[in-house]
Amino acid sequence: MYPFKPGSFAPRNGWYVAAFREEIGEKLLSRWILNQPVVLYRKADGTAVAVEGRCPHRHFPLGESKRVGDAIQCGYHGITFGADGKCTFIPSQKVVPGVYSIRAYPLVERGLWAWIWPGDPDKADESLLPTEEEIGFSRSADFHAKPFYYHHVNGRYQLLNDNLLDLTHLGYLHGGSIGTADDAATPEERDQNARRLSSRRIMKNTPPPPVTRERFGIDCPVDRISGMDFFYPGFHAGIGDSRVSEGYPQAGRQLTSSRVWHAVTPATKTTTNYFFAMGSPDKEGVEFMVEYLKPVLAEDIFATEQIEKIITTVDDVPPELMLRSDTTAVLGRRMLQAMMDAEAAKPGELT
Amino acid sequence: MYPFKPGSFAPRNGWYVAAFREEIGEKLLSRWILNQPVVLYRKADGTAVAVEGRCPHRHFPLGESKRVGDAIQCGYHGITFGADGKCTFIPSQKVVPGVYSIRAYPLVERGLWAWIWPGDPDKADESLLPTEEEIGFSRSADFHAKPFYYHHVNGRYQLLNDNLLDLTHLGYLHGGSIGTADDAATPEERDQNARRLSSRRIMKNTPPPPVTRERFGIDCPVDRISGMDFFYPGFHAGIGDSRVSEGYPQAGRQLTSSRVWHAVTPATKTTTNYFFAMGSPDKEGVEFMVEYLKPVLAEDIFATEQIEKIITTVDDVPPELMLRSDTTAVLGRRMLQAMMDAEAAKPGELT
Amino acid sequence: MYPFKPGSFAPRNGWYVAAFREEIGEKLLSRWILNQPVVLYRKADGTAVAVEGRCPHRHFPLGESKRVGDAIQCGYHGITFGADGKCTFIPSQKVVPGVYSIRAYPLVERGLWAWIWPGDPDKADESLLPTEEEIGFSRSADFHAKPFYYHHVNGRYQLLNDNLLDLTHLGYLHGGSIGTADDAATPEERDQNARRLSSRRIMKNTPPPPVTRERFGIDCPVDRISGMDFFYPGFHAGIGDSRVSEGYPQAGRQLTSSRVWHAVTPATKTTTNYFFAMGSPDKEGVEFMVEYLKPVLAEDIFATEQIEKIITTVDDVPPELMLRSDTTAVLGRRMLQAMMDAEAAKPGELT
Repeated sequence: MYPFKPGSFAPRNGWYVAAFREEIGEKLLSRWILNQPVVLYRKADGTAVAVEGRCPHRHFPLGESKRVGDAIQCGYHGITFGADGKCTFIPSQKVVPGVYSIRAYPLVERGLWAWIWPGDPDKADESLLPTEEEIGFSRSADFHAKPFYYHHVNGRYQLLNDNLLDLTHLGYLHGGSIGTADDAATPEERDQNARRLSSRRIMKNTPPPPVTRERFGIDCPVDRISGMDFFYPGFHAGIGDSRVSEGYPQAGRQLTSSRVWHAVTPATKTTTNYFFAMGSPDKEGVEFMVEYLKPVLAEDIFATEQIEKIITTVDDVPPELMLRSDTTAVLGRRMLQAMMDAEAAKPGELT
Repeated sequence: MYPFKPGSFAPRNGWYVAAFREEIGEKLLSRWILNQPVVLYRKADGTAVAVEGRCPHRHFPLGESKRVGDAIQCGYHGITFGADGKCTFIPSQKVVPGVYSIRAYPLVERGLWAWIWPGDPDKADESLLPTEEEIGFSRSADFHAKPFYYHHVNGRYQLLNDNLLDLTHLGYLHGGSIGTADDAATPEERDQNARRLSSRRIMKNTPPPPVTRERFGIDCPVDRISGMDFFYPGFHAGIGDSRVSEGYPQAGRQLTSSRVWHAVTPATKTTTNYFFAMGSPDKEGVEFMVEYLKPVLAEDIFATEQIEKIITTVDDVPPELMLRSDTTAVLGRRMLQAMMDAEAAKPGELT
Repeated sequence: MYPFKPGSFAPRNGWYVAAFREEIGEKLLSRWILNQPVVLYRKADGTAVAVEGRCPHRHFPLGESKRVGDAIQCGYHGITFGADGKCTFIPSQKVVPGVYSIRAYPLVERGLWAWIWPGDPDKADESLLPTEEEIGFSRSADFHAKPFYYHHVNGRYQLLNDNLLDLTHLGYLHGGSIGTADDAATPEERDQNARRLSSRRIMKNTPPPPVTRERFGIDCPVDRISGMDFFYPGFHAGIGDSRVSEGYPQAGRQLTSSRVWHAVTPATKTTTNYFFAMGSPDKEGVEFMVEYLKPVLAEDIFATEQIEKIITTVDDVPPELMLRSDTTAVLGRRMLQAMMDAEAAKPGELT
């Protein structure tokens, strides 16, 4: 489906953020992931687990069910499944058929996030996860990291990936807050490897974005670094650094030094789980941004939902007219399409 | 459509509840039945009638139209149809073409209900209706029967039939009110004939359900009978009997003695008319249950609507993993599928 | 699609009302027209323009974007398009590819309306527009014309055309306000040419409609003319004239003398832009009708939305049973179908 090949929805063999770690507790948490209902909770021993959210008996949502110890008792007929997905109890019969089970998903906690592997569990490989170092997450006392928002967005996930893979939008969609015209006008440096696709823009002697102007009360040019690392299939680690440019009072003074993390996880075919978090050595800055960024994220969600509406309403939506600035997004799409093609291929078949 | 064969929606040749009798009066009542709009009203002589709810001229809803004597005058262009469906007046011309008519459905009042036959009127046979005796409805002064609720449920009708054909859900979906674990743990006695499919559970020395405990202030074991008779294609007559078990104070005292009636009538492809009523010699009990059962029915509706959402969202919803307790529901589905197959068959064709 | 051939939605080569002229100003106005988002605004020199409302880069809605001089700067990545549709600026690159443009639609202001030509611009011919004279619009100081309402109706456009092409509904759908039984009972005079399809009903010695009775405090028969001229593909100019009949006090006194204008423009496949306006030498009458007609229009919208719901829900909605009074509507449908057939035909192909 758009913008992928017909029939291609999302790669399954990959780590996606299922939830912020702090969202997972004793209570069952329901979440749609890659068009499947999933339940997340924390076992008595503290381990976070993710299991299928649809009882195989009558399709009742297990996330709307009852927790009994570390197991889930279906809210409809009481069929009970352990955290490993195996059925442990059927109220109406003594024998539990071997076939009775739900999927238990590989789930790993790292950084602020719980990462799920929706595909073939045999292929779940933790070394494919972005490391905390790679994404600029630190456990040091001098670093402050915080989950900001979880949003359920009424648009397909790739629209959010596209958004994050092309930061030329900062000066326009977010021109009143975090971006300037130079976010688009500055050439992008790009780097891709098997784990991630990186983009950097180095801006020297550039006007500060409104947020920097406001927060630090400055009105002189700054030197900025803006970048984003896309870890396939759905995690974007961003960098935002700025300091006062040479030749101005307080030249070289560090203003912002922040990491922003966007996790984009398909919910249904046309809706998306969107997790936004931030980290910085500047604790006050982090607290300031929680409120400040709310309307900024709302702009991204607005764009996504409006575009979703347009592409589902007009007939035969024409292909986008691509620009040079779309190169990163195109590379990102190609990578996801290649992952999907590989999953769809029969053994021995070339993709 | 799920859970039936592709293209199979609902049997048409059968009696369905269209309304509680008390709902039908002078005012036109609009109701979708088997994916068709229908209008119900009572003629001046008191006879209840059901006619097609779509004007054949421009598809305007006749239920949103005007009653003129025993006829309906379409609210759009004034074309008027008698209670027999024949057009009696066209405002813009003198001649009424013979072809001008709407369907008039066979409609029979019995018990608390008005029963409609949506299929071939020539096959409408009142002897196929459940008798008042069969469903435990009595006109005796010692028996109190009352329509409780009409609900329009956002889920396909068979999900509600499945619900009623498998009472092992009582102790789980309704574990806080009308059921106990023994509703599932007790083996079921089953009986099927050409009119109905019956299920009974006899529980001796069993803990009373919360409602019995509450209402009668008892805390000792009871003997219970729980059962349901499914009259094809959409009426379920339930039995709930309990008395104090032997060996306890007031042994043998009759506690509950109730009949519950669930009528399940397809509205559209994915929505359902659900009529619930109750009767008992215990008048006070009936009055008590009107309020008491509201949240209990809400649980059934919640389950139905959640399941509908899941099966319409996930791709290729897998077949249910059946249990022994599903036998009755499976027999019920087979009967409805056989009715649909017979209706679809061409003359002489084997089904 | 219903009521046209499968695949036929709406003629594109024709003038449709895009907006009341007074709606178009400095601010960008978003409107769906023939299943495409469109943006309307007035340039600094006062000229009204209409351009495509979807940025070809990422499908962001240009109507939710920013005006920069006479150009629109896309609210997402800042790509800028002049009022002629040509891209003038891409923030991320110096070169603007020749292919970068959006459609600019022919737009003409005439009467109270701005008329758009959604089809082939080379075929846009202003002589196809209804003239102000033809529709009874006058710029004289003695004539008062006023846009009344814009409605976005949840039903396909042809249902509204059908409504307006068969005024036998006046005495039924609007029997409490603007119509009487004679609106249906009176034979219709019809006239069709290449520009329009006309219908007139001349009623002598006929009961006054409720509105006339109310406003003029009369209770005697009147002579009325009621008519509608349908200018293809979506404009209906109506006539409503009444005076006191001979033989009654104040015989010959002119009561109403009004022109009503309905513009019906497809928004999406199943929704419609509906513009209603009125004109008369009787200024007080026009002001009176602004409030008076609100519930009357609501009846038309109710009928349209109810019918839309019925035809999209029932399977295989049967063809309408046509009456003599449907002749005008049938001729109107045939004309639109012929326009669509001509547009779909390959050069040299007969339609």
